[in-house]
Amino acid sequence: MNIDQLLSANAKSMRRSAIRDLLSVATRPEIISFGGGFPSPETFPIEELKTIMMDIMNEKGAAALQYGSTEGDVSLRQEISKLYKEDGMDVPIKNILITTASQQAIDLLARIFIDPGDVIVCGLPSYLGALQAFWSYQCKPYGLRNNDRLDEAINALIAAGKKPKFIYSIPDFQNPSGETMSVEERKYVVGVAKKYDLLIIEDSPYKMIRFEGESLPTMYSMCPERVVLLGTFSKTFVPGFRLGWVAAADNIIERLIVAKQSSDLCTPIFNQMVAARYLQSGSFQKNIVKIKDLYRRKKNVMIKAFEDYMPEGVTWTNPAGGLFLFLRLPEQYDTRELFNIAIKENVAFVIGEAFHCDDSGKNTMRLNFSYADDDKIVEGVKRLANAIKLLYKEHSK
Amino acid sequence: MNIDQLLSANAKSMRRSAIRDLLSVATRPEIISFGGGFPSPETFPIEELKTIMMDIMNEKGAAALQYGSTEGDVSLRQEISKLYKEDGMDVPIKNILITTASQQAIDLLARIFIDPGDVIVCGLPSYLGALQAFWSYQCKPYGLRNNDRLDEAINALIAAGKKPKFIYSIPDFQNPSGETMSVEERKYVVGVAKKYDLLIIEDSPYKMIRFEGESLPTMYSMCPERVVLLGTFSKTFVPGFRLGWVAAADNIIERLIVAKQSSDLCTPIFNQMVAARYLQSGSFQKNIVKIKDLYRRKKNVMIKAFEDYMPEGVTWTNPAGGLFLFLRLPEQYDTRELFNIAIKENVAFVIGEAFHCDDSGKNTMRLNFSYADDDKIVEGVKRLANAIKLLYKEHSK
Repeated sequence: MNIDQLLSANAKSMRRSAIRDLLSVATRPEIISFGGGFPSPETFPIEELKTIMMDIMNEKGAAALQYGSTEGDVSLRQEISKLYKEDGMDVPIKNILITTASQQAIDLLARIFIDPGDVIVCGLPSYLGALQAFWSYQCKPYGLRNNDRLDEAINALIAAGKKPKFIYSIPDFQNPSGETMSVEERKYVVGVAKKYDLLIIEDSPYKMIRFEGESLPTMYSMCPERVVLLGTFSKTFVPGFRLGWVAAADNIIERLIVAKQSSDLCTPIFNQMVAARYLQSGSFQKNIVKIKDLYRRKKNVMIKAFEDYMPEGVTWTNPAGGLFLFLRLPEQYDTRELFNIAIKENVAFVIGEAFHCDDSGKNTMRLNFSYADDDKIVEGVKRLANAIKLLYKEHSK
Repeated sequence: MNIDQLLSANAKSMRRSAIRDLLSVATRPEIISFGGGFPSPETFPIEELKTIMMDIMNEKGAAALQYGSTEGDVSLRQEISKLYKEDGMDVPIKNILITTASQQAIDLLARIFIDPGDVIVCGLPSYLGALQAFWSYQCKPYGLRNNDRLDEAINALIAAGKKPKFIYSIPDFQNPSGETMSVEERKYVVGVAKKYDLLIIEDSPYKMIRFEGESLPTMYSMCPERVVLLGTFSKTFVPGFRLGWVAAADNIIERLIVAKQSSDLCTPIFNQMVAARYLQSGSFQKNIVKIKDLYRRKKNVMIKAFEDYMPEGVTWTNPAGGLFLFLRLPEQYDTRELFNIAIKENVAFVIGEAFHCDDSGKNTMRLNFSYADDDKIVEGVKRLANAIKLLYKEHSK
């Protein structure tokens, strides 16, 4: 049966993940992959989780295995509220909705706000998974470079009859660029949103994974009625439990609950109860310290390897947190071409183009430093440096 | 901030769950609720799960807590393929996609097939959660009573320029009517789908929970390229793990994978591994026998209580499986009015109107018999019978 004529316009506007497609060729065990956004398995509190799982099963029994509420487990929402309190924010649990990880939060937000053809503003580059969700609702993301003036851009969009629905931003250790917005930049973006009556989606998966310097205030804290703040336990606890959340104003949470209900009814209650207990134990905070130390070291290992092995013309970011480094080749090179050479050299990464909604950034790439062991990081960078040299050679012919 | 002017047409077409709204008033502990579709906590294999969880954590370790593939855990898909084999079907794992329970499967299918204004054909009544998902994409469900001829209805829809995208059907112990389609009816529906080149979504959450008689062949087995078969572990294992699946042709699975990717990336891998191990142990099959015995008994307890207490004019179904009984009052009564009386009598149910996409069925209601203890079933039916008598009295004034 040919299903093409039955497909919705949404289905036709969906794009397969470039990560998925590219990395599907990179599954050979000899390949060192800097591709995914996997946290280090070293950071998973396996022994502690075993104890907590047994405690939850013994104490909660059937309640941990039954349907849960769409809003999410109250004890987990309380712990998230406490985390915010420690970060200087007052977010009551009624303003917190648990989602099946933050990808679902992005999807639900796109779903309740995006009509076909609607424009949103995001970074150039920006998080691929968010772009995918936006595209799947026939959204037209408008990408803004850091040096572009947001207010001018929005003004121009409005003049062209394309007023954006929201600004999508990852202010801390942006994926993939690693960049962090200053307090002034945050205030400026909030000011622009107020001026033009726009929403801001503040995606914040890495804020707690800061290697140095002080934690900066969220845009949510500056304007809670206009900013939707997304969080996740995928990088600070375990991704395999699929736990994220949204903090937002009542009227937005209410709409998201209705949307979530028809999406998956509720997030697994057992997983939520285990996470809540882990947070209650205080181990979450201790583990964050461990994660920061580990990832700071891994980042330094990768940067040192870049300095040691990368040929001339390659530049990279040095973010103060997060999981990624962003590399840039001289303008004339395409990392898609590099990818094919790199795979032969047994190393993988994600092409930067995938993070650019306007298909620019062809000379860029994203490398993850959280997953691979230190020696693999060094070996992988050596291979990548070699692949880049081969690319240069190819072009100098 | 007023968000109403920012909402998508999809958001505006979403309907809050009637179950949710009605039952939110029914949370007092003294209320006996026949409202939800909760399985009995007695059927949850708590002790066995504790052992399996520890085994998975010890054997799989970090792999059970990391990101998983969008398609789902291979071992779980193998076990589902085996279940189908035992039921006489050959479904390779490449044609099985794990979903975050079957609500997500319905949502993803609506997402890839429904454009605003599209028509689908479903039952009158039909599963409320499916209707909600369809509505959320601005779909117009066309409800068909059992005695309506499907081919005539589709012919008329096509003549009116409203060719349906698919037929949504729950052939075994339909929710809420409890009705089961005969083999001839299944063949007929498949024949109609072939004739008019339509898809069928065969939602099958209760097929294994059959109290008597022989299991009937799925429509999927009759025409696997045209039928999408949905399954769930929510009723036969535990709902709190949020595990369901889709069996479908390659071209449909492929589209669903892309849609799932932007919805939630993947279903929790730990939960999948635990379920797979439970199925491998053989305990799943033994537990199904226990579930069937328990629910058969509970159904009989409820029907006996109806016979003992219900006033004249009330009729009910006696399904050969599933979790629900469907009640009918004389035409002139509205179960929404009854609901308010029943809540005062400390008993709750779901109004039948919620399952009717044309807002008919006002004199009907759905009662769940799987969740409450036997003595609560009897007491709840007494209270409900009393509420109905009060309703009758009110109207005879």
